Amino acid sequence: MNLNRAAISPGPARGPVDHEVRDQIVAAATEHFRLYGYEKTTVSDLAKAIGFSKAYIYKFFDSKQAIGELICTRCLHVIELDVKTAIDAVDRPPEKLRRMFKAIVKSSLRLFFENRKLHDIAASAATERWEAVRAFDGRIQAMLLEILRLGRETEEFERKTPLDETATAVFLVMYPYFNPALLQYNFDDAEDAPLHLSSLVLRSLSP
Amino acid sequence: MNLNRAAISPGPARGPVDHEVRDQIVAAATEHFRLYGYEKTTVSDLAKAIGFSKAYIYKFFDSKQAIGELICTRCLHVIELDVKTAIDAVDRPPEKLRRMFKAIVKSSLRLFFENRKLHDIAASAATERWEAVRAFDGRIQAMLLEILRLGRETEEFERKTPLDETATAVFLVMYPYFNPALLQYNFDDAEDAPLHLSSLVLRSLSP
Repeated sequence: MNLNRAAISPGPARGPVDHEVRDQIVAAATEHFRLYGYEKTTVSDLAKAIGFSKAYIYKFFDSKQAIGELICTRCLHVIELDVKTAIDAVDRPPEKLRRMFKAIVKSSLRLFFENRKLHDIAASAATERWEAVRAFDGRIQAMLLEILRLGRETEEFERKTPLDETATAVFLVMYPYFNPALLQYNFDDAEDAPLHLSSLVLRSLSP
Repeated sequence: MNLNRAAISPGPARGPVDHEVRDQIVAAATEHFRLYGYEKTTVSDLAKAIGFSKAYIYKFFDSKQAIGELICTRCLHVIELDVKTAIDAVDRPPEKLRRMFKAIVKSSLRLFFENRKLHDIAASAATERWEAVRAFDGRIQAMLLEILRLGRETEEFERKTPLDETATAVFLVMYPYFNPALLQYNFDDAEDAPLHLSSLVLRSLSP
């Protein structure tokens, strides 16, 4: 299959076909990682399992990590959507913040712990600070900043503390309870933590 | 040496001599773990290195973990003393809390990261929730509760929230930044985190 591909789709047609093949590799890799774990799988294992040559996979991805990054990005995107949905479902900034804490922990737990074998992609990603994770953290910080800004506008949150300082501190409180590498140690507390933490944070934000 | 011991100290005299031998084993084990790591060392390795028989070590400790627990207890005791000293150096509860955050993170970082090889005892202890760690967490919680109680008495902290609830929440904020298993992932933030987090917590405590 790999040798025929170039003949079938040369030049301009390459883009969409590349996209399809990449999707096919990612889907097969996700399934393979789900069964055998990410850390222990090599690109050779993956090639054998998918039925492509190793060289062919390397045409589309620079490394195993590049495949892992894409899987990770998609997982994190699901979490991000859950969080966004939870925030958008209510109007008042304090309630948005409460929902954000709850949703991010719940969604992270579900995604990473329903399937322990996929979790090690997330743990590697978080430990090695992959680009996918840094981008995700950035978007979570942006959502948080938006809620804080809104709460200051509606005068439900205090305005004395510099906004950046507040945002950093709230993110530091939240972070260990959704970061997948940390979450594995926080398992006992993860159920109740969002409630306790968001209540504390809201008290800190009261005008 | 090991075979003579029973003859030298039979019956009532056993206690103090046991204590000395235990200390000797712990000191040698600490040094061995420091050089070769805790996870990779077996009781046989340890026996060889110390020059005792494996059976003799087992007279004093049930397992490698039992030795690790004692080392861990001593390390955690150093952190506890640092925290206590920091708290006692000032009078006002808000400042006590600030110092507590700073001291616990600083002392944990120093102890566990100056020597990476000893750190894996701490990480095992924290991950597997050894008794030494649970006892330590309990004493940290007690110190925290005492500061909160004092701050309510002096009316520097709010009293509307149930004390237990406040104590749990503040502990959940602090915990990821001193737990050795988590600390390894929080390394980038560990420098600034205590300041940001204690400021947030103090805002949440204001009456």
